[in-house]
Amino acid sequence: MYIILVYDIIFTDTKEGSKALRRIFKTCKRYLHHIQNSVFEGEISNAKYIEMSYELAKYIRKDMDSVIVFKQDSGKWLRKDFLGIEDDKTTNFL
Amino acid sequence: MYIILVYDIIFTDTKEGSKALRRIFKTCKRYLHHIQNSVFEGEISNAKYIEMSYELAKYIRKDMDSVIVFKQDSGKWLRKDFLGIEDDKTTNFL
Repeated sequence: MYIILVYDIIFTDTKEGSKALRRIFKTCKRYLHHIQNSVFEGEISNAKYIEMSYELAKYIRKDMDSVIVFKQDSGKWLRKDFLGIEDDKTTNFL
Repeated sequence: MYIILVYDIIFTDTKEGSKALRRIFKTCKRYLHHIQNSVFEGEISNAKYIEMSYELAKYIRKDMDSVIVFKQDSGKWLRKDFLGIEDDKTTNFL
């Protein structure tokens, strides 16, 4: 399965917020490619996705943090355009 | 075509950076749904996509701003999970 994960972590200027951000970032980085400030992408198995989601759930503050995952069986139908700098750590899908 | 647009605009604490951010945000908002801090998504025609890209190109600073667009012929194969707050301005694709 191919996923794009985007997050918006609130109050990162507080001790609690920056701790949540650090842990969410590190967890995402272990499973996915970091391609932009709060954006990750990559191929991942269902088992690993469940594992990652469980770990993230420990850090995500359900009432304020937004973590959205776009999922797709494979990345082959996904094309990517870079309208700004092209700083991509994954191959383009074209 | 269905797209997910993510941006990372640099130095938004400077006059120039915050102007770029404001203009990029407003442009994206005219064509797409704003679902998270720097994330937009939506259905868009090829013509409108080209029109939006031209306008964005006026504001994006090519050597520092990152704007990545994931494109797909249709959104029907895309599924969405909310691991945090569920604040989605579009219908879920399930």
